[in-house]
Amino acid sequence: MRYGIIGVGAIGGFYGSKLAYSGQEVHFLLHSDYQFVKEHGMQVDSCDGSFHLDHVNVYQNVEDMPKCDVVLVGLKTTNNHLLAKLLPPLLHEHTIVVLIQNGIGVEADVQQMFPKTQLVAGLAFICSAKTEPGRVNHQCYGSINLGNYSCKDEARFQQILNDFTNAGVQAASVPYEEARWKKAVWNMPFNGMTVALDTQTDLLLKNPDTRQLIRDLMMEVIGAAQHLGVTGLTEAFADKMIETTDVMTPYSPSMKLDYDFHRPMEIHYLYSRPIEIARAAGYRMPKLEMLEAELRFKEQA
Amino acid sequence: MRYGIIGVGAIGGFYGSKLAYSGQEVHFLLHSDYQFVKEHGMQVDSCDGSFHLDHVNVYQNVEDMPKCDVVLVGLKTTNNHLLAKLLPPLLHEHTIVVLIQNGIGVEADVQQMFPKTQLVAGLAFICSAKTEPGRVNHQCYGSINLGNYSCKDEARFQQILNDFTNAGVQAASVPYEEARWKKAVWNMPFNGMTVALDTQTDLLLKNPDTRQLIRDLMMEVIGAAQHLGVTGLTEAFADKMIETTDVMTPYSPSMKLDYDFHRPMEIHYLYSRPIEIARAAGYRMPKLEMLEAELRFKEQA
Repeated sequence: MRYGIIGVGAIGGFYGSKLAYSGQEVHFLLHSDYQFVKEHGMQVDSCDGSFHLDHVNVYQNVEDMPKCDVVLVGLKTTNNHLLAKLLPPLLHEHTIVVLIQNGIGVEADVQQMFPKTQLVAGLAFICSAKTEPGRVNHQCYGSINLGNYSCKDEARFQQILNDFTNAGVQAASVPYEEARWKKAVWNMPFNGMTVALDTQTDLLLKNPDTRQLIRDLMMEVIGAAQHLGVTGLTEAFADKMIETTDVMTPYSPSMKLDYDFHRPMEIHYLYSRPIEIARAAGYRMPKLEMLEAELRFKEQA
Repeated sequence: MRYGIIGVGAIGGFYGSKLAYSGQEVHFLLHSDYQFVKEHGMQVDSCDGSFHLDHVNVYQNVEDMPKCDVVLVGLKTTNNHLLAKLLPPLLHEHTIVVLIQNGIGVEADVQQMFPKTQLVAGLAFICSAKTEPGRVNHQCYGSINLGNYSCKDEARFQQILNDFTNAGVQAASVPYEEARWKKAVWNMPFNGMTVALDTQTDLLLKNPDTRQLIRDLMMEVIGAAQHLGVTGLTEAFADKMIETTDVMTPYSPSMKLDYDFHRPMEIHYLYSRPIEIARAAGYRMPKLEMLEAELRFKEQA
């Protein structure tokens, strides 16, 4: 299968390079890194073994790229409006688009833009960063879960999982709604609260008041998911997420890094959309509403 | 009547000096300012007309003070544990203690310490600051409302109102519970949110998201008061408080000043106690619970 990568940062750069290094045909859309990668290739410094790609298929314009069977989207959702322009040249009738992005409602909105395109949610569990042009630093973890949103081609869906596996990436198929909401159970409390209180995961859990607040926020997400009929989210899952985070190294989630580096924050898909979806179904998340307002304020301040 | 003043800062210093300047017998407990005021007297720079008290009855130890008919307490509630030691030497059988303090539950707790003492809530509407030793700067407003908590001596209660009035201070009798909760409608949203988002009243109201959040927080206070059977608090009161704040000059509430100057914040009586009182009666204030947790975190950070 032919892969296209849009959004070649810490996520798209890592998974695209792994696939390319395993022998898949991969085409990367680059902007500022184009000239450097064309000349010097891509470097992945990885806890699983570093490697270098000498020759990479790179493009400055999406119009120059070939049609792809699979497109991995590693953009921040704050740039999803660009997909209207970036995706069409890559799509043929059977292209599967994998949105490796954060939040709730992403697939629904992209599906509205491309009603006939087969969409898959990519849930990355990875610590990685793009440290300089053409260079990704992969610190730990690295698995990817795929949640089928609207892909009818089961064989091709399975082939993507196999291609990841063959590239040394742990990949599994997960139920779409459950996977998106489970990730939100961690994402919604920790992304926003580290920004709101200018801190890291460990200090939020060390203080008994914010530890309880984190749990309350998780329970709002779980309550919303249950109300929406999503299965698999129980109170025990909140406890498990807190215990998991207790043993993690102190961590700044992606929204905290975005805030610190004055980049746009993914408030829309991490907060506004899930809050809106739950409210439309008659379920309120008051503390997450408050967090959303605080983030909107900090975004402007 | 003989007045004693405990907590001679922006509040106790102002009201005590006004009473003294009008000819009342007033005794001030001072700490660091003792020597200065003993030698130079007290200065009040006031929008209503500045004045100087040449000779002031000042004390370093409460044991040296005479019994008083009325004690005005201008301490921050974070120091209320000191009342166990400070009040007894001033009390006779009929002393009325006026707690000019912020929050909900103050009188109930002081009454537990002094079951037989007559308590009155003092609600000050004033912008003032202690700018240097023996000097209070009174910028604007200045009225005081008295809410009778457990004073049986109606004549003396009325006399206090008269003494304030004669001293040029607007004073009125208000229903205790209603007055405390009405003040909380403004205090709970603005004190905490200016700390949480490191901002001032005007910017919170300018941003549409935090403007809505401020209103949500006000409605939680009003909902709690209504649930507790306190009359006089309606949705229209929230709108009135917001409109009033819209036309105020940008303002840092007392908790914001405490936070900025690394003084203890009055989280207990402004948040924990009302949240606890409402919860015990079966009413939750989720957004204010979240604000409390954020303040507890910032207090330690």
